[in-house]
Amino acid sequence: MKAIVYHGAGDRRWEEVPDPKVQDSTDAIVRVDAVTICGTDLHILKGDVPAVTEGRILGHEAVGTVTEVGSSVSTVQPGDRVLVSCITSCGRCRYCREGMYSQCQGGGGWLLGHLIDGTQAEYVRVPFADTSTHPVPEGVSDEETLMLADILPTGYEIGVRYGEVSPGDTVVVVGAGPIGLAAILGATLYSPARIIAVDLADSRLEAAKRFGADVVLNPERDDVAARVRELTEGLGADVAMEAVGIPATFEQCAEIIRPGGRVANLGVHGTPATLHLETLWIKNVTIRTGLVNTFVTPELLKLLEMGRLDVSRFITHRFRMAEFEEAYDVFAAAEESGALKVVLTP
Amino acid sequence: MKAIVYHGAGDRRWEEVPDPKVQDSTDAIVRVDAVTICGTDLHILKGDVPAVTEGRILGHEAVGTVTEVGSSVSTVQPGDRVLVSCITSCGRCRYCREGMYSQCQGGGGWLLGHLIDGTQAEYVRVPFADTSTHPVPEGVSDEETLMLADILPTGYEIGVRYGEVSPGDTVVVVGAGPIGLAAILGATLYSPARIIAVDLADSRLEAAKRFGADVVLNPERDDVAARVRELTEGLGADVAMEAVGIPATFEQCAEIIRPGGRVANLGVHGTPATLHLETLWIKNVTIRTGLVNTFVTPELLKLLEMGRLDVSRFITHRFRMAEFEEAYDVFAAAEESGALKVVLTP
Repeated sequence: MKAIVYHGAGDRRWEEVPDPKVQDSTDAIVRVDAVTICGTDLHILKGDVPAVTEGRILGHEAVGTVTEVGSSVSTVQPGDRVLVSCITSCGRCRYCREGMYSQCQGGGGWLLGHLIDGTQAEYVRVPFADTSTHPVPEGVSDEETLMLADILPTGYEIGVRYGEVSPGDTVVVVGAGPIGLAAILGATLYSPARIIAVDLADSRLEAAKRFGADVVLNPERDDVAARVRELTEGLGADVAMEAVGIPATFEQCAEIIRPGGRVANLGVHGTPATLHLETLWIKNVTIRTGLVNTFVTPELLKLLEMGRLDVSRFITHRFRMAEFEEAYDVFAAAEESGALKVVLTP
Repeated sequence: MKAIVYHGAGDRRWEEVPDPKVQDSTDAIVRVDAVTICGTDLHILKGDVPAVTEGRILGHEAVGTVTEVGSSVSTVQPGDRVLVSCITSCGRCRYCREGMYSQCQGGGGWLLGHLIDGTQAEYVRVPFADTSTHPVPEGVSDEETLMLADILPTGYEIGVRYGEVSPGDTVVVVGAGPIGLAAILGATLYSPARIIAVDLADSRLEAAKRFGADVVLNPERDDVAARVRELTEGLGADVAMEAVGIPATFEQCAEIIRPGGRVANLGVHGTPATLHLETLWIKNVTIRTGLVNTFVTPELLKLLEMGRLDVSRFITHRFRMAEFEEAYDVFAAAEESGALKVVLTP
């Protein structure tokens, strides 16, 4: 088959590789019907995620059709349409029992396109298939479902749920890429008073408005901290979400938070940030980080099935898998191309 | 009357000052029957808390007898024995209604010995007396009650409750001064699997054992991170509490926390710390800071009344108020004097 293979920082190629095979009795082999590229894949290509080694097939998001299952798989069978989640979970360890699948100690966690071969391929081996795939509801398209492989659960779970967005809150989302937009879309479910999106690219701020932002700020023109204070009677934001992955944006979130507020870190970071404890110690703030667990995926699939979650607007570009390298270029040049999510099909 | 007056960094004197008077209808004047010195007072004397200006009477902990009340005070009256809490609350603003009294927006918060004259005096004016004092239960001594003015609520609320200590947890308390010991004592109420105390002073580690620590580590001899990993099957602590107030101890807490664990910052900080987001972003950790709200004070007073909270062991030294300057010296030289809490009476 063909797949996108990582050959060290900056180098990924669509090339011939061996077909995946069932290795463990809990595996499924899934034919990839729709796949996308994540901002995290770009972090990997920058060398920010050293656990990814040369020769690895990238990708951790897919919707596909099961073609083969191991002997102990009981909830999916060949022919089933499934969502392949970015998080693989053994379902048995303490972390899985507590719903913190991201930290699975039984051999799961974020494996696909990270520690094992991923989904940017014609076929993918999915370990622990019973607990790492989700059946796709009738009447929901592959494309829509694909948005629930990573970005929607990440924005909703780590941003909105970890950040405890509540009705009436002022929510600031710093970074209006796909993850930030997913957080904005998720936040709208909790009736905040206002959502403020912050980004350096006006095209992304326009997208943020379409996803539910009430106020958009561009740090090149706006004094973000001053504007947030103005809008909150001097207090600061109830919730600030970091959705970029650099120290400056994290530090901005910590600066604009109100006493008693919550900072939720969604970004993938490669370097440390400065934590201003000299001002924060007395402010009763909560800071949470997180790799998505995907415990919200069933809830999001239900909202999707009910037509309560319009995710189609994430998709700006469509390609054939044979055009994978071009798709990467378009996605990486998001500021010029206006790309949010690209979808690739066979 | 006489009081301990702050005259700039390093300079505090027991000297004659005017008696306090009722200024607002919600004030009470309290005769101080027992008062103590807090580690925060030492931070103030180091210049770490610039909001404290010259001429300020220090102190935010006292037990006393009401001598006069303003016209609208209705729950305390002259002759009542009261605990003067470190936190003053208007009881009316949004933060007070939410129980986050530390962030009172109605003119309260941490006022005593900070923004207004404090308790290290023969008399003290207590604003919002109805919501900022607690009646002292029958049969409980002034000395014991005094431990609930700040250290016990701080350790219990910011360390144990914010840190979400749960049965079976491994809890690490970095810093075994009075606040750290209060956190240890509070943690024992939640049946953790083990409490690990970390301090550079062996005398404090001995005290930590008496307060409930199961394991004590001295970083001069022990590799703290390695020992915590050893004791937790390689995972790290469920809860790590910072009870010193310097970057190194905060960073140690963030280093030894397990995936999904909680860091609770109790220390008063004067400088920023480094937050290693490059490792923490993927670990699903929660970091909380906090000035005590004292919403746990009624609960702690009840435990005290029931004999379920032995706080007398905090008190290592007793002085007359006329010996206040000596008491400061003994408390500041805790490592040599073995001082935990000093109590001063008229």
